Amino acid sequence: MTTPAVKMIMVYVTTPSKDIAMTLARTIVGESLAACANVIPGATSVYQWKGNIEECAEHVVILKTVESKVEDLSERVRSLHPAETPCFVAIPIEKITADFGEWIIDSTKTVSHN
Amino acid sequence: MTTPAVKMIMVYVTTPSKDIAMTLARTIVGESLAACANVIPGATSVYQWKGNIEECAEHVVILKTVESKVEDLSERVRSLHPAETPCFVAIPIEKITADFGEWIIDSTKTVSHN
Amino acid sequence: MTTPAVKMIMVYVTTPSKDIAMTLARTIVGESLAACANVIPGATSVYQWKGNIEECAEHVVILKTVESKVEDLSERVRSLHPAETPCFVAIPIEKITADFGEWIIDSTKTVSHN
Repeated sequence: MTTPAVKMIMVYVTTPSKDIAMTLARTIVGESLAACANVIPGATSVYQWKGNIEECAEHVVILKTVESKVEDLSERVRSLHPAETPCFVAIPIEKITADFGEWIIDSTKTVSHN
Repeated sequence: MTTPAVKMIMVYVTTPSKDIAMTLARTIVGESLAACANVIPGATSVYQWKGNIEECAEHVVILKTVESKVEDLSERVRSLHPAETPCFVAIPIEKITADFGEWIIDSTKTVSHN
Repeated sequence: MTTPAVKMIMVYVTTPSKDIAMTLARTIVGESLAACANVIPGATSVYQWKGNIEECAEHVVILKTVESKVEDLSERVRSLHPAETPCFVAIPIEKITADFGEWIIDSTKTVSHN
């Protein structure tokens, strides 16, 4: 366990379908904007819109990355997401196992040549 | 991306059924105590009770709000939750996309007139 | 609501099967390394490995504990986890309801005698 020397972030995004969630996950990981993505299905979002309570099905996408990638990551999510104002929230990682932290750093340095 | 000027919080709550999770989500969003709720089904909780390991089914509820609403939000969760000691944990939001942050501020200001 | 006097942590781990997730949850709670675990099924992980995008099924395990247990907890997760480099990330808890915070402290003090 270590306090990361390079600041790390967990990003929480919601998406309206499995297709969009998986496209977003594959694109962002393929472009090394995050080391990994976890897609969690079956969520229901509840929010207000013009005074009414609205509900919709969501897939949550959780991304782990270095802080220096978060700005570009947020732009990429916006370009791939159908909503005008996607849910995009960055949570601090306080501690991390040393090898997993190094893996995140390595995975966000590498440029994919697929 | 921006560091929110108004401090923002992600709240993590667990509930014993979909009905309770959805009632909690709709009530809290309807009362502008949070901008949105994501209900995640199918979780299993494991904990100790009087020396035994207990397990139960849970729906996780994730709420996004401004810090100034967290106290009232926790009281409302308690009033709607069947457990004596509900799981209620507040996680800091370090960065957020500017428009999503503004939407959270607006959505927690508005009083619902439903 | 209170800012915890004893620093508290939410740990986010991913595991490749329900069996591993539940064994990990029961062992860690049974050894008082965390007060509770929430196992969330049905996730898909996306990551890069040697230039290819890989995908696998995951169960997410979310653990709530005091910061002083996180080091031992990470060692225990490693001993129970089949991956060489498990995903193990510690997120700060900024605020917590007073009684739930006390329950976490109590539950991580008690040694199980099962």
